[in-house]
Amino acid sequence: MSGGAPIAELVQLLSRLPGVGERTAQRLAFHVLGESPEYAGALGESLAGLHQRVKRCGRCGHYGSAELCDICLDTRRQDQVICVVARVQDLLAIERSSNFAGRYHVLHGLLAPLDGVGPDALPTAALRARIEQEGVREVILATPLSVDGEATALYLSSVLEGSGASVTLIASGIPHGGELEFTDQVTLDRAFEGRKPI
Amino acid sequence: MSGGAPIAELVQLLSRLPGVGERTAQRLAFHVLGESPEYAGALGESLAGLHQRVKRCGRCGHYGSAELCDICLDTRRQDQVICVVARVQDLLAIERSSNFAGRYHVLHGLLAPLDGVGPDALPTAALRARIEQEGVREVILATPLSVDGEATALYLSSVLEGSGASVTLIASGIPHGGELEFTDQVTLDRAFEGRKPI
Repeated sequence: MSGGAPIAELVQLLSRLPGVGERTAQRLAFHVLGESPEYAGALGESLAGLHQRVKRCGRCGHYGSAELCDICLDTRRQDQVICVVARVQDLLAIERSSNFAGRYHVLHGLLAPLDGVGPDALPTAALRARIEQEGVREVILATPLSVDGEATALYLSSVLEGSGASVTLIASGIPHGGELEFTDQVTLDRAFEGRKPI
Repeated sequence: MSGGAPIAELVQLLSRLPGVGERTAQRLAFHVLGESPEYAGALGESLAGLHQRVKRCGRCGHYGSAELCDICLDTRRQDQVICVVARVQDLLAIERSSNFAGRYHVLHGLLAPLDGVGPDALPTAALRARIEQEGVREVILATPLSVDGEATALYLSSVLEGSGASVTLIASGIPHGGELEFTDQVTLDRAFEGRKPI
């Protein structure tokens, strides 16, 4: 079709990216062809070498370029609190916006029985070991507020029972600036359930 | 920031793609990290080798994998009519939808004086040579209906004067299914200018 197999092959590979359909993939492929070969080479090598150059931190699972990540190496952070997240993206969002100064534990996934992802896929044994070794007092579960996320949070809270650390879940409710009128039923219910004295 | 220089470098390169901002680039980078190294390798190699594997047809400028493209090699097509397009994407759109059975000439650009793209950047000498050598009787200009596109069409019509081929421009008017109520002024004016007896 589009001038030979190389373009078709690239379009097919690009279509597997999230939010990229076949038309977008074609547009991207032609854009790269219109750019310099140097750019295409740099982008290609950056992608091809990504897994080899990015390492998972041996302690928390965060991405980094050494055995331990920058956060685990930061001696100013507290060891006693661990925040559990599903993905590195969630960790980065928390780092951008909050005052959380503890450590992290990245699951790199959630329980998803329908997709064949069971408890064995989650690094829970490593989490329990860290609680003992690092004297952790609190584990904050910051898994997403989806079906899989909440199932994972429930599962983790049962796994961590008796570990000596208290387990908490981040609050669910009306977001900042959110209009009650346009808030969905579940969020409103949760906002009421989670009400606190002021 | 996001776990080392490799990710930051990839995000920066991906952000240069059309329609990809920094956040989307980050999402894509993390998606690739979550996929298999084999996929990342295949995508990377496909990108890095793109310019080398895709050739421009020596006759019309279309992309292909050999000296001449599939369309130029197709003996069933007519030599007497050449359709001039700005980009290979436009050629593909015409191939998908129309009954055009002539040849093409891809400009790989448009006149854009503000961006420093002058007449020298357009393959007009090759086009004139083709008209003589291939006995072309009609050149259909299918450049886009933008300022640059129309300036290029005007320029080409002057360059092709006296070449022996008649030069035509594709019609501008109300698109199929278009509502007159919501049609812009320029398009309406053109639809009236281009009216024909029925």
